[in-house]
Amino acid sequence: MAPLPKRLTGELAAIDEFIDRFDVFLFDCDGVLWSGDHLFPGTVETLELLRSRGKKTIFVTNNSTKSRSDYLKKLSSMGVPSSVDEIFASAYSSAIYISRIMKLPAPKNKVFVIGEAGIETELRSEGIEFLGGTDPSLRRDITPEDYTNIANGSMLDENVGIVLAGLDFHINYLKLSLGYQYLARGAKFLATNLDSTLPSAHSFFPGAGSISIPLISMTGQQPIALGKPSQAMMDSIEGKFQFDRKKACMIGDRLDTDIKFGLEGKLGGTLAVLTGVCKAEHWEADDAPVRPHYYVDKLSDLRG
Amino acid sequence: MAPLPKRLTGELAAIDEFIDRFDVFLFDCDGVLWSGDHLFPGTVETLELLRSRGKKTIFVTNNSTKSRSDYLKKLSSMGVPSSVDEIFASAYSSAIYISRIMKLPAPKNKVFVIGEAGIETELRSEGIEFLGGTDPSLRRDITPEDYTNIANGSMLDENVGIVLAGLDFHINYLKLSLGYQYLARGAKFLATNLDSTLPSAHSFFPGAGSISIPLISMTGQQPIALGKPSQAMMDSIEGKFQFDRKKACMIGDRLDTDIKFGLEGKLGGTLAVLTGVCKAEHWEADDAPVRPHYYVDKLSDLRG
Repeated sequence: MAPLPKRLTGELAAIDEFIDRFDVFLFDCDGVLWSGDHLFPGTVETLELLRSRGKKTIFVTNNSTKSRSDYLKKLSSMGVPSSVDEIFASAYSSAIYISRIMKLPAPKNKVFVIGEAGIETELRSEGIEFLGGTDPSLRRDITPEDYTNIANGSMLDENVGIVLAGLDFHINYLKLSLGYQYLARGAKFLATNLDSTLPSAHSFFPGAGSISIPLISMTGQQPIALGKPSQAMMDSIEGKFQFDRKKACMIGDRLDTDIKFGLEGKLGGTLAVLTGVCKAEHWEADDAPVRPHYYVDKLSDLRG
Repeated sequence: MAPLPKRLTGELAAIDEFIDRFDVFLFDCDGVLWSGDHLFPGTVETLELLRSRGKKTIFVTNNSTKSRSDYLKKLSSMGVPSSVDEIFASAYSSAIYISRIMKLPAPKNKVFVIGEAGIETELRSEGIEFLGGTDPSLRRDITPEDYTNIANGSMLDENVGIVLAGLDFHINYLKLSLGYQYLARGAKFLATNLDSTLPSAHSFFPGAGSISIPLISMTGQQPIALGKPSQAMMDSIEGKFQFDRKKACMIGDRLDTDIKFGLEGKLGGTLAVLTGVCKAEHWEADDAPVRPHYYVDKLSDLRG
């Protein structure tokens, strides 16, 4: 059992030592930098402090509907200065994983996408061929002919080697039928992330995990997930940034995704904030499955 | 461990004794009476034989998109003479369960339906108020306003007490969002059936279970299922037909749905046929979880 986390809020010497210990800080965004449309006071100044001390800041998000440049716009609109190179989202993580880790041989390496434009942008940026996605011809009801043509393969692209499922606001029966059929014929199964819910408007809506789970249930196959806490995402991040894991710290508000992601990735540190989902009581229980190394009440407490 | 089933094919005396033992025969349809669009030879004559010996025949199907009268048309189109009163489908089973077993007090007893017209017909026949279903205003993309109005409840009917999920060929993000929100606010969760796949065109397509599973994953709640092998369906059948379970026999081609349904319902008998999914090797294994009492190679072997 890991020890209880050290609280840094108000402990100036401990904060200084904490910051000195790491070269790289990985940030979850919602619940850490902001909540919904509300930027937490001191967020920008905290990032500036870390950068002024030579630290690398990386924003890691499971949001699969946005490309990095979409997400940069989101950060800018929230008033958080950043650059594309600091952003690591699950759509990009998926593209990197396909192009640099899976490396399926052509021609059977096309990707059937269930998801939105952010995934397409990132696949394109890695030169990966794909179909599905936002294709308007798939945004329709299934027809009697479709059943025959899907089952006999005439509606399928025989070069599909991967099904990638992310959050799709236009999910329908036809796309699920096609996704199933590709998987049943041997395509590899990837998911941008497995979060069953998406926080929005102070409530929850279906997340990317709610798009892939019918396919999991139909095929009995588990996808490789590219979002937190999957280590496939950590491998992708490390592949890109080439940092020393012992000198990196993951900062987040969720024990089961952010903190678990950092711990399983054997990062040198994990820091929880109490401005999101997680409460101190979650790690205080004797049987708490995940405990961060440190916590602060709010991110801006790192300013001392 | 149950003993191996007795093979009746070709055993005239045993068949005669088998038929004499039961008053009621419950039939699964696809894989027993027909396969796809192909009626097995001797099906009609076998049903006539049983009826001529005074037996009650009941057709039990997990198909949730059809009402009983829709299903009667299906039986007629296959050349199987029947009547509405002999048909028990999961949409009807769901309606019976809601009206005669759950009996939620008005006004908070409306049903939010995710599914097709068959469910609506059966709910209407039991006088149950509902919304959703085939409502064309829900067959559209989610809008930014929807997030707010779903989350704050202004788009919801406060009298919804039940979410009923069946096979919906028009499933979309909006319906899943509404279904989740009703469940999160305390509605009871029912599913017509939990089959993840639907056999069609000699392949598989998403079944009713693929519609409910995102809601299961989002809420952590398991629905009460009204299809085989759920005993809620057996209770509904018994509630309607008032038969002696010891004098009833379930006939089917699937061990995990049909035969399990009969065994868990403590029917006097279960008969497997080898014209569908199930093979003899499935129950011959030492660790076979389900063994029928009897089997025939094909249903028409009961004609002796």
